Amino acid sequence: MTKSSLQTPKGFRDFLPEQSSRRRFVVEKIRGILENFGFEPLETPTLEYAELLKGKYGEEEKLIFEFTDRGGRDVALPYDRTVPLARVLATNQNLSKPFKRYQIQASYRADNPQKGRFREFTQIDFDILGSNSLVADAEVIVASLAATKEVGFEKYILRVNDRKNFQGLPIEAIRAIDKLAKVGEYGVIDQLKRVGYDTKEAKALLKRVKNSSPTKQVKDLFKLLENYKVETDKYAFDPTLARGLDYYTGIVYEIEVEGYPAGSVGGGGRYDDLIGRFANGKTPAVGFAFGLDRLIEAAEELNLLDPYKVSSRVLVTVFNEKLLKESLSLVSLLRKQGVPAEISLDPNDKLEKQLKYADNKGIPYVAILGPEEVKTKTLTLKDLASGEQKNLKIGEVIREIK
Amino acid sequence: MTKSSLQTPKGFRDFLPEQSSRRRFVVEKIRGILENFGFEPLETPTLEYAELLKGKYGEEEKLIFEFTDRGGRDVALPYDRTVPLARVLATNQNLSKPFKRYQIQASYRADNPQKGRFREFTQIDFDILGSNSLVADAEVIVASLAATKEVGFEKYILRVNDRKNFQGLPIEAIRAIDKLAKVGEYGVIDQLKRVGYDTKEAKALLKRVKNSSPTKQVKDLFKLLENYKVETDKYAFDPTLARGLDYYTGIVYEIEVEGYPAGSVGGGGRYDDLIGRFANGKTPAVGFAFGLDRLIEAAEELNLLDPYKVSSRVLVTVFNEKLLKESLSLVSLLRKQGVPAEISLDPNDKLEKQLKYADNKGIPYVAILGPEEVKTKTLTLKDLASGEQKNLKIGEVIREIK
Repeated sequence: MTKSSLQTPKGFRDFLPEQSSRRRFVVEKIRGILENFGFEPLETPTLEYAELLKGKYGEEEKLIFEFTDRGGRDVALPYDRTVPLARVLATNQNLSKPFKRYQIQASYRADNPQKGRFREFTQIDFDILGSNSLVADAEVIVASLAATKEVGFEKYILRVNDRKNFQGLPIEAIRAIDKLAKVGEYGVIDQLKRVGYDTKEAKALLKRVKNSSPTKQVKDLFKLLENYKVETDKYAFDPTLARGLDYYTGIVYEIEVEGYPAGSVGGGGRYDDLIGRFANGKTPAVGFAFGLDRLIEAAEELNLLDPYKVSSRVLVTVFNEKLLKESLSLVSLLRKQGVPAEISLDPNDKLEKQLKYADNKGIPYVAILGPEEVKTKTLTLKDLASGEQKNLKIGEVIREIK
Repeated sequence: MTKSSLQTPKGFRDFLPEQSSRRRFVVEKIRGILENFGFEPLETPTLEYAELLKGKYGEEEKLIFEFTDRGGRDVALPYDRTVPLARVLATNQNLSKPFKRYQIQASYRADNPQKGRFREFTQIDFDILGSNSLVADAEVIVASLAATKEVGFEKYILRVNDRKNFQGLPIEAIRAIDKLAKVGEYGVIDQLKRVGYDTKEAKALLKRVKNSSPTKQVKDLFKLLENYKVETDKYAFDPTLARGLDYYTGIVYEIEVEGYPAGSVGGGGRYDDLIGRFANGKTPAVGFAFGLDRLIEAAEELNLLDPYKVSSRVLVTVFNEKLLKESLSLVSLLRKQGVPAEISLDPNDKLEKQLKYADNKGIPYVAILGPEEVKTKTLTLKDLASGEQKNLKIGEVIREIK
């Protein structure tokens, strides 16, 4: 085996306990909000037939991870979980609608990895399918704001636009304008020139877009958000916001977090035509996706995440081979009482080595069960942070460390 | 797009809300036990370099999902999460040992799908790395039994053997004997003949194995399990148990659930040499893996899982466009009070249609806010199961449905 095969492929990552635990913390916060809003969980597989994904993502399609399986069929890792969702809708006509689902899974893009962007990345998607009511757009927006707040962010804003503001423009021009916040006016004009506008036209177009007013839909949406009592500094109209994907048809939005300039932590919008491409009849849809990596990066930069703590509250040490029995009995009892506990695995290890294990791992307490303790049916509990030791009965221990 | 591309590839599945929710229920039960035992979470990526996986799984290697990426490198979907774990250990020398990790992720095998077996399947793995103490074996076993109990099973047994019982035998013979419970004595003898034994040798070998006594290690292990106060009907010595994988070196075990004959719900053992193949120095290891699909299938057959319930406790109906505002305000308030709630999305839908949505989705209550209710600052709460209706103040509603 070569040394390089010990690495993960480019853009694919391991998550060690600290990072895995942070990801779970953020995911569970958001899951709580989504269930509070009545979204239901859904999972789709890690492979799809490639044909399903083709023709859905515009020029980005070249980034699909595609390969041929043993049966000779072209398969692919999902580029997102929206197209698989559309497939689920098309093949499960019995799902009662409006169908509100959330999905927390990885997607895959053979992109060049950069800050906050990876080839395997997790998104937290939630969508409402089968409603063309503006209340559905509002529900998704209110849920996305509540979820952002729940993670611990205080200053954030949802920027909103209506794709109808760009009616008649080619997708390349829309994508160029969408980059305004990232590349500035000159950057946008440059990009517009590259897709066929001359300087004068490009400037005029950008000016026209920047000065456009909220559509009736945007105004009606903002009234709904008032009815939900969303704080008014949490959303704003942005006529240049477009979102990159081809399939949006109406209201679109992104959430930006103050103090995290790397980009939006999530975005979404209405896409009324996508599902109809898989199934008979039209299924209007609206949805949002958080990028978990960005959310975590932002939360880390703003110090919102507690330092990692192992679950174990106490390490039960082993005095010697003969007293191992007592320690096994204790660790078993603690666990049954709901106290996460570990036991030193090697009865021949010196106490010092056992304490060092607890210390390295960040376990706050150690329990010592020597001949004296066994005789008096007590144990010595040591708080590793303070160094304080107490001789306690077992019932007292549970109270002390729980 | 052809119709067949709307299917999932063979052996790959969608999980609709009911199934996804059951999977999560079982996973969270087991995760709770593993954290109670001090195992820490770990995640590895969906792609590995193919070279990493080669030469680790014996003849099963042909089932690896392998392909060439755009950069021309051979990559593969993980066949299990043990080899990736070994890679993590080898490349993170700073991990404090013994390292106790759990991992709940999918693995992939290009096998022919059959009952309870899929090409994409989730395993709940937990391992202790860096300890050759028998206490580590016992910890993994006790955790696996506690997790089985936590899911709700009452009658189950962990069958135990020592790979040293098979010392000197080729892996093909070991695999043949391992199938005894599945194919019976004649089946085993048949299989032994296929790998080069004559009938007499095959019979003698099977008899010898069946009559072999527990090794010292097994006896010592059982003493430890007694110290942990594991009920003695929950484990037993089985001289024919071997486990299929090549890499086991010591104690091996499987858990079987009474009333679920399709096979074990999980198994594991000691594998002291695998990690040393990736890194300098020996890292003894012991671990267990539950098959989530089998666990759920068994739990379903034994009726251990509650019927699926959506998270939403109440649907706030919308009387008309004019009163939408009141309903938005109410749903928002309920959610903030921690009551999972939905709102009817289309203000033009008749009340009957709104009630039908709640009923279809299994939402237990609906709240009705008509002109009369708005005037008296109350609402009508209808219990869909009993049909009972009450006129309540908002504070009372929360108490009623929480």
